[in-house]
Amino acid sequence: MEFIKITSAQNDAVKHLVKLRDRRKREKEQLTILEGYRELTRAVEYGMELVECYFSPGHFLGENEYPLLESLAQKGIPVRELAPQLLEKVTYRDRPEGLLAVAKMRRHTLDDLPVDPKGLYLVAETVEKPGNLGSMLRSADAVNATGVIICEKGTDIYNPNVIRASTGAIFSVPLAECDNESAKAWLKKHNILTLAATPHTDYCYTDVDLTQGVAIVVGAEQTGLTDFWMNGADLPVVIPMLGKIDSLNVATATTILLYEAVRQRNFPGFKK
Amino acid sequence: MEFIKITSAQNDAVKHLVKLRDRRKREKEQLTILEGYRELTRAVEYGMELVECYFSPGHFLGENEYPLLESLAQKGIPVRELAPQLLEKVTYRDRPEGLLAVAKMRRHTLDDLPVDPKGLYLVAETVEKPGNLGSMLRSADAVNATGVIICEKGTDIYNPNVIRASTGAIFSVPLAECDNESAKAWLKKHNILTLAATPHTDYCYTDVDLTQGVAIVVGAEQTGLTDFWMNGADLPVVIPMLGKIDSLNVATATTILLYEAVRQRNFPGFKK
Repeated sequence: MEFIKITSAQNDAVKHLVKLRDRRKREKEQLTILEGYRELTRAVEYGMELVECYFSPGHFLGENEYPLLESLAQKGIPVRELAPQLLEKVTYRDRPEGLLAVAKMRRHTLDDLPVDPKGLYLVAETVEKPGNLGSMLRSADAVNATGVIICEKGTDIYNPNVIRASTGAIFSVPLAECDNESAKAWLKKHNILTLAATPHTDYCYTDVDLTQGVAIVVGAEQTGLTDFWMNGADLPVVIPMLGKIDSLNVATATTILLYEAVRQRNFPGFKK
Repeated sequence: MEFIKITSAQNDAVKHLVKLRDRRKREKEQLTILEGYRELTRAVEYGMELVECYFSPGHFLGENEYPLLESLAQKGIPVRELAPQLLEKVTYRDRPEGLLAVAKMRRHTLDDLPVDPKGLYLVAETVEKPGNLGSMLRSADAVNATGVIICEKGTDIYNPNVIRASTGAIFSVPLAECDNESAKAWLKKHNILTLAATPHTDYCYTDVDLTQGVAIVVGAEQTGLTDFWMNGADLPVVIPMLGKIDSLNVATATTILLYEAVRQRNFPGFKK
């Protein structure tokens, strides 16, 4: 299959890609940028709508890229080659993999979330760093979380660095975006208990029954959970801090709690 | 106490701070830059040698900054105020806290590590992203790890973003930097078992006895552990991946293993 090659920085498509580096532009057009073989594959697999795709073979890491590009072209997605210096101009990555796509943002509401009274949910309130949010989504996928609720969002969930850090888990995990009140009401309605980590309790996170339907609620990097969640949490737990520092990175703390839940549930679905 | 205020970008101290933004310059001078109240406090507490300190009160977050600055000045450390635009010029942070210090790098060898046949060690091979390495050090402190060995280093441990992500844990955790062979020989000599996460085993990480002296060995973000560690690991374990994706962020995976070890050890030193 032959693809058109773009070599001029003045090309309209290239100018558009450059514009999409700006969050406001992405928000306005409800478009985002995906990069990498893994991310593109997962985006397609989980139903993201790709608008157009670009590649630069000199940056390819493996040999699977061309089959992917051909399958995208066969679906009617415009696929074009970029001269290496143009790819480097538009990539978000230090070490680009030579594959980039523009995709339509998908918005998610609480109605999109699976309801499971024994489920394992994650609620992320105002998490600000794309790397942390992406890493948390990756962990949520890894424990096969029933759903993730992004409350009072601190970063755009389609920030290219969220997509990257999630390694595509953002496309596979059931998501909702909403305000705190709606999230709390939804969880209450479905009898899902809320768990919040705090130093101000005697209950270690390993001491509580996480086989119940539970939502692990975590807050912003600097300030932690707001009183809205902290005061009303059904299960306040402490993650013991045995050294000198007084807190963990939010993504690692989240992952400890998620993995404790699946440990107590005997790793459902895990085949040795 | 009165401090000298620098208002010109042409000031030699400011020019020097700008130069220290370059890794090669930092390496050559064996100097690094710390920022933030928490980091400066911990650096001093754990014996880092501060060369000079700068501040810009307009950026302060709280009211503890002046007492810290005065205690530094009393120790003979030159403390100077920077005009806000100069602080913004030299900071590494999006939201600077108005406190910045130049510190001497401290190098660490295996001889600096505590020897404990029942200890809990972390070995990080070629971890590349400062945020991940910092987050791992923060988790290592949180479980009161006996020591952390940085092998075949992928990023400078004194990269300001490592210091930042560690929230100062880099100063409190016993560290060594060395090559793979030396690390393995040291662990073997002290009868510390090595644990490596791999999909290619039937042993879940919760199935192995982590109350023994153990070193959790983790590898680079993209490529994971090299064969050097993977082939020779005493305890190969799998972290179950129950969703669609096939791996976790290295800092979160590390933290799961460290916290499973302290869970099995009944959180030594934890006071409810």
